Amino acid sequence: MKTQKIPEATITRLSVYSRFLAEVEASGIISISSGEIAEGTGGTPAQVRKDLAYFGDFGTRGVGYNVDSLNIAIKKILGVDNPWRMILIGAGNLGSALAHYSGFRNRGFDIVAVFDNDIRKVGMTLSGLPILPIGEMPAYILENDIQIAIITVPGQAAQDVADELAETAISGVLNFSPTSLSMPKGISVRNIDLTVNLEVLSFVITNHDFLTGGDVVE
Amino acid sequence: MKTQKIPEATITRLSVYSRFLAEVEASGIISISSGEIAEGTGGTPAQVRKDLAYFGDFGTRGVGYNVDSLNIAIKKILGVDNPWRMILIGAGNLGSALAHYSGFRNRGFDIVAVFDNDIRKVGMTLSGLPILPIGEMPAYILENDIQIAIITVPGQAAQDVADELAETAISGVLNFSPTSLSMPKGISVRNIDLTVNLEVLSFVITNHDFLTGGDVVE
Repeated sequence: MKTQKIPEATITRLSVYSRFLAEVEASGIISISSGEIAEGTGGTPAQVRKDLAYFGDFGTRGVGYNVDSLNIAIKKILGVDNPWRMILIGAGNLGSALAHYSGFRNRGFDIVAVFDNDIRKVGMTLSGLPILPIGEMPAYILENDIQIAIITVPGQAAQDVADELAETAISGVLNFSPTSLSMPKGISVRNIDLTVNLEVLSFVITNHDFLTGGDVVE
Repeated sequence: MKTQKIPEATITRLSVYSRFLAEVEASGIISISSGEIAEGTGGTPAQVRKDLAYFGDFGTRGVGYNVDSLNIAIKKILGVDNPWRMILIGAGNLGSALAHYSGFRNRGFDIVAVFDNDIRKVGMTLSGLPILPIGEMPAYILENDIQIAIITVPGQAAQDVADELAETAISGVLNFSPTSLSMPKGISVRNIDLTVNLEVLSFVITNHDFLTGGDVVE
């Protein structure tokens, strides 16, 4: 891999390509063109080729890509060629939704335990997963080789949880709380801000009518 | 506004700036510098100035920005200066989480009704909102001037819901189902793909150790 910066949009598209290729593979198709990948994922052939070119040379001109080996390569790039062991912190509505969400497990993201500080929830299960007291989290991460934590606690509690995680060997955090978290450099954080998404939609709707030149947002 | 394309990242940052400015304003502060906005939102002063420059000239050199008037301007750009009337389609776990989520209402995104095709749920309420049968959705949108629909139904049902919405006067769709939706040109769609976010995190963790030059993702 080149050490240049890679646009985040390229990584998000690789994720979409990979899941599309898995579907294609399941239907028994052996090879595919950049045009077919583009058509199946709502992009353009040039964009598909450019996204892949950041990482190497995967196809053969005039022949296209081998579906299986291209998807193996993309999954390796994304780091989803091996399963991730995850915990979920916060057993509220959003936590419940994520615990039940089959899309994660299908791609090798396994939630193995849920933590909450509500003693009425501790000892119960969520989608078959044990709900454990939050005080046991650091030891659990260590003993069970947990790599990713998903935070769905309320905003005011999120940084406290993050501070506790910062003392562990966790590799990454997916944060759904409405607070941007600060973490030590070695821990990757991805903040999912649900309100931002609505405001981008609001911007696009608002500027849809009077702006010329197609899409407002690049 | 210039008719150039605006990076989506700029719009997402404007949303973050606006909510930060609302907090600052509530604490009684009158004026603010780009450096203070950057510090409060985890960016750089140059980025703050560049993001704002797409839309005009808001500050005074050496004096900074008036907090109130800058936030009024940003809210107008984002289209959140007036409230949006929204419906939620799908009263499952994720729908429940979003119905209870206070961050939307605080920014003028009001969910006014919930629709579901499960007759056991119809007639009940979710966070004080009525759950109505999905067949009544088109008439409800028309009669109640609904502008945005949030879809949280399972993947296989999402395009059917989208097809019904396409026949209405809805302006925008926030789609949480794991299916990318196709909609007519006049309806803006924003797909929230939860798995993509985990895969970007996986990519960043995986490439964290051996890539040099700081952040992997631009």
